[in-house]
Amino acid sequence: MKRMKVGVIGATGMVGQNYLRLLKNHPWFDVKYVAASPRSAGKRYEEAVAGRWLMAEPIPEQIRGLVVEDANAVGSAKGKCDLVFSAVELEKDAIRKLEEAYAAAGIPVVSNNSAHRSTPDVPMIIPEVNPGHIELIDTQREKRGWGKGLIAVKPNCSIQSYVTPMFALIEAGYKIEAVIVSTMQAVSGAGYPGPASMKMIDNVVPYIGGEEEKSEQEPLRILGKLKNGRIILEKTIKIAAHCNRVAVIDGHMACVSLKFKGAKPSLDEVKKLWINFAGEPQKLNLPTAPKEAIIYREEPDRPQPRMDRDAWGAMAVSVGRLRECPVFDLRFVGLSHNTVRGAAGGAILSAELLKAKGYL
Amino acid sequence: MKRMKVGVIGATGMVGQNYLRLLKNHPWFDVKYVAASPRSAGKRYEEAVAGRWLMAEPIPEQIRGLVVEDANAVGSAKGKCDLVFSAVELEKDAIRKLEEAYAAAGIPVVSNNSAHRSTPDVPMIIPEVNPGHIELIDTQREKRGWGKGLIAVKPNCSIQSYVTPMFALIEAGYKIEAVIVSTMQAVSGAGYPGPASMKMIDNVVPYIGGEEEKSEQEPLRILGKLKNGRIILEKTIKIAAHCNRVAVIDGHMACVSLKFKGAKPSLDEVKKLWINFAGEPQKLNLPTAPKEAIIYREEPDRPQPRMDRDAWGAMAVSVGRLRECPVFDLRFVGLSHNTVRGAAGGAILSAELLKAKGYL
Amino acid sequence: MKRMKVGVIGATGMVGQNYLRLLKNHPWFDVKYVAASPRSAGKRYEEAVAGRWLMAEPIPEQIRGLVVEDANAVGSAKGKCDLVFSAVELEKDAIRKLEEAYAAAGIPVVSNNSAHRSTPDVPMIIPEVNPGHIELIDTQREKRGWGKGLIAVKPNCSIQSYVTPMFALIEAGYKIEAVIVSTMQAVSGAGYPGPASMKMIDNVVPYIGGEEEKSEQEPLRILGKLKNGRIILEKTIKIAAHCNRVAVIDGHMACVSLKFKGAKPSLDEVKKLWINFAGEPQKLNLPTAPKEAIIYREEPDRPQPRMDRDAWGAMAVSVGRLRECPVFDLRFVGLSHNTVRGAAGGAILSAELLKAKGYL
Amino acid sequence: MKRMKVGVIGATGMVGQNYLRLLKNHPWFDVKYVAASPRSAGKRYEEAVAGRWLMAEPIPEQIRGLVVEDANAVGSAKGKCDLVFSAVELEKDAIRKLEEAYAAAGIPVVSNNSAHRSTPDVPMIIPEVNPGHIELIDTQREKRGWGKGLIAVKPNCSIQSYVTPMFALIEAGYKIEAVIVSTMQAVSGAGYPGPASMKMIDNVVPYIGGEEEKSEQEPLRILGKLKNGRIILEKTIKIAAHCNRVAVIDGHMACVSLKFKGAKPSLDEVKKLWINFAGEPQKLNLPTAPKEAIIYREEPDRPQPRMDRDAWGAMAVSVGRLRECPVFDLRFVGLSHNTVRGAAGGAILSAELLKAKGYL
Repeated sequence: MKRMKVGVIGATGMVGQNYLRLLKNHPWFDVKYVAASPRSAGKRYEEAVAGRWLMAEPIPEQIRGLVVEDANAVGSAKGKCDLVFSAVELEKDAIRKLEEAYAAAGIPVVSNNSAHRSTPDVPMIIPEVNPGHIELIDTQREKRGWGKGLIAVKPNCSIQSYVTPMFALIEAGYKIEAVIVSTMQAVSGAGYPGPASMKMIDNVVPYIGGEEEKSEQEPLRILGKLKNGRIILEKTIKIAAHCNRVAVIDGHMACVSLKFKGAKPSLDEVKKLWINFAGEPQKLNLPTAPKEAIIYREEPDRPQPRMDRDAWGAMAVSVGRLRECPVFDLRFVGLSHNTVRGAAGGAILSAELLKAKGYL
Repeated sequence: MKRMKVGVIGATGMVGQNYLRLLKNHPWFDVKYVAASPRSAGKRYEEAVAGRWLMAEPIPEQIRGLVVEDANAVGSAKGKCDLVFSAVELEKDAIRKLEEAYAAAGIPVVSNNSAHRSTPDVPMIIPEVNPGHIELIDTQREKRGWGKGLIAVKPNCSIQSYVTPMFALIEAGYKIEAVIVSTMQAVSGAGYPGPASMKMIDNVVPYIGGEEEKSEQEPLRILGKLKNGRIILEKTIKIAAHCNRVAVIDGHMACVSLKFKGAKPSLDEVKKLWINFAGEPQKLNLPTAPKEAIIYREEPDRPQPRMDRDAWGAMAVSVGRLRECPVFDLRFVGLSHNTVRGAAGGAILSAELLKAKGYL
Repeated sequence: MKRMKVGVIGATGMVGQNYLRLLKNHPWFDVKYVAASPRSAGKRYEEAVAGRWLMAEPIPEQIRGLVVEDANAVGSAKGKCDLVFSAVELEKDAIRKLEEAYAAAGIPVVSNNSAHRSTPDVPMIIPEVNPGHIELIDTQREKRGWGKGLIAVKPNCSIQSYVTPMFALIEAGYKIEAVIVSTMQAVSGAGYPGPASMKMIDNVVPYIGGEEEKSEQEPLRILGKLKNGRIILEKTIKIAAHCNRVAVIDGHMACVSLKFKGAKPSLDEVKKLWINFAGEPQKLNLPTAPKEAIIYREEPDRPQPRMDRDAWGAMAVSVGRLRECPVFDLRFVGLSHNTVRGAAGGAILSAELLKAKGYL
Repeated sequence: MKRMKVGVIGATGMVGQNYLRLLKNHPWFDVKYVAASPRSAGKRYEEAVAGRWLMAEPIPEQIRGLVVEDANAVGSAKGKCDLVFSAVELEKDAIRKLEEAYAAAGIPVVSNNSAHRSTPDVPMIIPEVNPGHIELIDTQREKRGWGKGLIAVKPNCSIQSYVTPMFALIEAGYKIEAVIVSTMQAVSGAGYPGPASMKMIDNVVPYIGGEEEKSEQEPLRILGKLKNGRIILEKTIKIAAHCNRVAVIDGHMACVSLKFKGAKPSLDEVKKLWINFAGEPQKLNLPTAPKEAIIYREEPDRPQPRMDRDAWGAMAVSVGRLRECPVFDLRFVGLSHNTVRGAAGGAILSAELLKAKGYL
C-alpha cells in the first residue's frame, strides 16, 4: 500500500514532537509536512527545535531536514499532505478557526486540542469506545460544505484510564449510575515546561485547572449516542473527579469507585469482560492498536505508572486492584500513558480508524 | 511545675527517634528512660543509634548519654519513669504483652502501635475528636486490676486528615452517611527503610498493605460512643478508602467526598465550622496542641504536603478545595503530618490530655 | 535598642520572599518598606503575591498589609527605611543603576544580585571570610560622593560550601594551589519557576548557565586582599568547577579536591581547624550568625542536603568525608543552604556586619 | 546458526532478571537453564519471582515455565547449557567457589560479580577497551586444568562512562596522567531494594561503600597490558573518584577532569576521536554492540540520564560538555546505563566477544 502523506501542525511543541516520534516508520502515514508558528517558519525542522527537542529518541531522520511551514498559510499544505494532526498551541478561538481552515481546504484534521471537543458536529473519539461517532462527520461535511475535509478530536488525557474499563461493562449490559474518581497525573500532561520542579519534588499538587470539569463531562459525550446527526449525552451517569498532579513523568493513574443501577457484575465477571474486551481497533487490527485494549494486572500493587505505562506501545489501559467497595459496588485502579494513549497515540489511532472506515 | 519522668520504649527506631525529638524541651515530660531490644541494651543511646539516627536535627543533648535499657526488663523502668511512650517494633502479640506488662507494673503506656487498637477496653484517641473515650481507662483499670497503669493508643496515620474535619461537622449536628476517600501517603509512613527508591522515583504505588482496612474501620471506633464501659462503633457511616504511596517524605493527603443524611451544610457553613473548630486540646491549651486544630487554605491548589505539613508544629490538619460534589454532597482535600500529628506528636498530645484529666 | 527601618526591593519574587521570612522578628531590622515592579505597586503586599507566595510559612503578619511601592520611585523609600535589601530581577544594567540610585539617595543597599559583583569599588562579602573588605566602602563613598549610601553584595550561592572551609585552612597558613570541585545544586537556586519538573524527575542536568564561571572566579575576589582601595585577586589559586542541577529543593553540595603548595595539613589538623573556626560574625555574635560556622560530620555518608541544610538556622556550612586524595592532597564534601546562607540569609548577615562595624 | 544454550545463575535477583530481559530473542544465546538459591529451586521461574519481578516488561514467554535449579547443584547444569551468566548474590568467597565449580565442570562463566575482579588469571573486560585481555583465558585454562570452562568478568558499573572515552584518547597516542572524577549514580546500581526512598527524595547521598576504590583501581587493570600471562596494571595514570547517589532510576553520570602528560589533544581532535571510535565489538558487528560506542552530544546540557541512557540499546556511552579545564587540561561529562552497559548488557557483549574469538 502506498503511504498517505500527512502533516503535523504545531510540530515544534511537545505534542507535535510526540506525533513525529510515533509516526516514524508508520505503515500508513508518511510525514511530509510540518508547520508551526511564523517564528519557526522557513527553518529546517532540526534548527527550529534546537534546544527544545524533548524526546529521549533523536529527531527522526526523515524529519530533520523538512522545512517548517507557517501553520497559518493553509494553502502551503495543499498537495503536500492529505491529513494533518493538530497540536497547535493557541487561544481556543484561534485553534478552532485554524483547524476549520484546513478542513475547508479539503485537508482532514485530527486534533489533540480541547477547542473543538464540544462543537456539536465534531466527533470526540476513543476508538475502542465510540467508533460509531465518526459518522457524525457525514453531518459535519454536509453542513459545512467540506468535501474531503473533516475535523475529529480526541478527549482529555485524564479519562482514558477509566472510560474504556467502564465501557467494557456498559457494553455487556451493566448500567453505571455513579463514579467517584481520584486521579494522580503525570507532569507531562501539562505540556512543557509544565509544573516547576520546586512544586513537584517532595510534593503533590491537588489541583489542575479545568481538569476536573473535563474528567467529569467528556466521558458523558463519549458514552453518548449518535442520533439524527447529534450526540445525545449519557446523562444517566454521574461522575465526580478529584485531579492531582504527582511527581511522575508519564502515566495518569486513577482510583475509581463505581456504583451500578440494577444488576451488578461479580468481580470475576468484570475481570473476564476486561480481559476479553476488544474494540474496533483490535478487530480491524489497526497498526497502532494495542493487542489488548485492557490489561488486567493480578499483582496486589499494580498498575504503577513507571512499570505499566508502556504496555503495548503505551497504548493499552492497565487496570488492577479490582475489589468490592464498602460504599459503592466495586472499585479499581486504572492507568494509561497520557502523552501516547492520551494524546498523540490516541489521535493516530483515530486517524487509522477514519482511514479504515473510508473517511480519509 | 516539676516535670514528669517519662520513657520511650522502642527508642532506637524511627518513631522512637521522633518521640525523643519532639519531647526535647517538653514543659511537662522529661525523658529519663530509653529502652529497646536486647541488642541495644547497655549501650549509650548515641552508640545504639550510630548510623541509624534519621532525624535532621541532632540527637537531643540530654539523651545522648542515657544508657539504653532492655525493653523487656520492665522492672528496670520502675522508679525511672512514670509514663512510657511505646514505639516497639515486634509481632502484634508480643507488643500487646509488653505494653500490658508495663501497665501492670504501674507505668502508664501511650502507644503508637496498632496492636491494641481493637482491644475493647483500650481507648484509641484523637484528642480533638474523642477526648471522652479516655474514661474507658476507668473500666480498664478496674477490670485489669492496674493501679496507676493504663494503656491508651492513637489511630493510624492515614486518617487524621479527614476524621477531624468530619467530626467538626458531626459535632455541629450534621449526619454523614458515606465517605469515599483516596489518599496519597508519604514514604515515612512505612517506617524505615520503607519503600525502595526504585519503587518511588517517577512512580506511584497504589497499594499499602492493611492501610485501607484501617482507614475505613478506625474512624468508626473514634467516632463511636462510650457507653457502659464499652465503645459503640459509629455504624451509620460507611467509609471506602483507596490508599496510595507517593514520592513525598512526610505528609499524608486525602481527597475526600462526603454524603450527608438529612440536612447538609452549605460550603460557607462548613468553612466556618472548620475555622472555628476547637477541641479539648485547644480549650485546655495543652503544650503540643496546635492553636488551630483545622486550618482552611483558600488558595485553589492547597493544601500541599511540603507547604502545609508543618503548620502549628506539624500538629494542625490543613484542608482546602472545599466544593460541591456532582455525586455526593461535598468534597475537599485534607492533609496532616503523618510522623508528627499521625504518630509521635499525636501520642504526646494524648498523654497531655491524660495528664490534664488526672489519669497520670 | 531601637530597630532600624529596612526595606526589600524586589520584594515579591522568591528571594524577596525569603528576605521577608528571615527578617520576621529580626532584633535589629524592622521591615517597613517593600517595593517591586510597577505592576505590583499600589497593592497590599498580600494581594501582590496572591498565588505567588512560595514559602511554606505564611506571609509575616506585619508585612501582609504593607502597600507595595514602585521600586523605581527611589524617592518614596526616603524616610521609610534606612537600608534596603535588593532582590530585584531585571537586566544587569538596570539593576546596577537602580541600586546606585538608592545608594545615591543615601540609602545603603545590600544586594543578592550578581550585577555589581565585579564592580571594583563594591565589596563582595562572606562575613566569615573577608569581613575586612567592607572597608572598600570608604573608597566607594568617597569616590561616588555617597554620604550614608553604600552598595555591598554577596557572592553566588554555589561557592559557600567550599570557600569557607578553604579559608579556614588558608587562615592557618596553608597555601592552596588548585581546586577541582563538582557541585550538585538544588532547583531553588534557579529562582522560580526554575527547571521544569520534566527535566528533574529521574534526571540530573549537568549544566547551569554561567554558574561554572562564577564558581571559579568569585572565590578569587573574596580571598583577595584589599590594598589602596582596591581588591587584589588571589591569583595563586586555580579553581575548576563542574556544576550540576539535581532533584533537591534546597542545599547546594560540592565534592571538592584540594592541592596545596608547600606544607599540607594532616586530616586531623584540617578537622580541628574547621571545628574551631570562628569568623567575625561568630566573634561579634551577630544575630544571624551560626554558632558554628563550619560543622564537621563524622558519619561516612554526610553531609546530605535534606539532613544538613538547616543546621544553625540554615546558616552553617556542613562538611564531611574528609580523606586523602590519590591525585591531589585531600578531598571532602561540603554543603550549604543556597537560598538562606547562599542568598537572603548571607545578605542579612552582611548587613549585620556593616551595622556592627558602623557602616549603617 | 544454531543458538548456543545458556544459563543464568542468580536468575531471580535484579541483575538476573536483567539478563533474562536482554537475552530474550538473542540471536546467538538461548536461555535454557535458570538457577538460584535452594529456596527457589524446584519452582517454575514465574512462581519463584512472584512479587519480585522488577522489570517493566513482562517475564519473557520462554522463561516463565522453566524450572529453577539449585545454583549449587552444578552438575544439573551440564548438558543443559554451554555457558552461564553469573549474577549470584553471596559472600565473595562463596561466589568465587561457585563460579570456579561451573568452570571446572566445563561450563564457561561470564560474571557480573566483583569477586573475581582481581584474581590474576581472570580477565576483566570492557570489550571496546581491552578485548585482548581475553587471551588471559589461555593461561587460566592451562593453569587450572579447565577444558572448555573459563571465567571472565565485567568491571564495576561506575567506570563505563569515563574509561571508554579515556581509552579512545590513549589509543590515539595521548598519555593521561591524572583524572579527577565525580559521579552521580542511579539507585538501581545498588541492586534491589537499594537505598530507601526516605534517603533519596529531595536528597543526594555523597557516599557509596567501596565504590570510590573500585572506580579508581579497576580502570588501571582494564587499561593495563597483558604480558606473559599476567596483567600489568597501568600505573602511570592516577585516578581520584567522588561517588554520589542521586535520585535517578538508571544511568550513572560522571564529571571528569583529565590531565595529560606531554602532548594534549585539541578539543576538536578529542571530539573527532570519540565520534570515530570503534572497538572490536563494532568491528566484529557483535549483536549487542552499540553502533556507536561513544556518542558526542553537542547540546550544552547533555548527556542527561533520562534522555541519553537508552542510546543504542542502552549500550552506548554518551559524552558531552567537552571544554578546557582551568586546572587540568580538559573536562567533560560522561554517561552510561548502569544496569545494561554497566552490568548484564556488558557481560552479554563480553560473551559475544568470547564466542567470536573462539573461546566458547
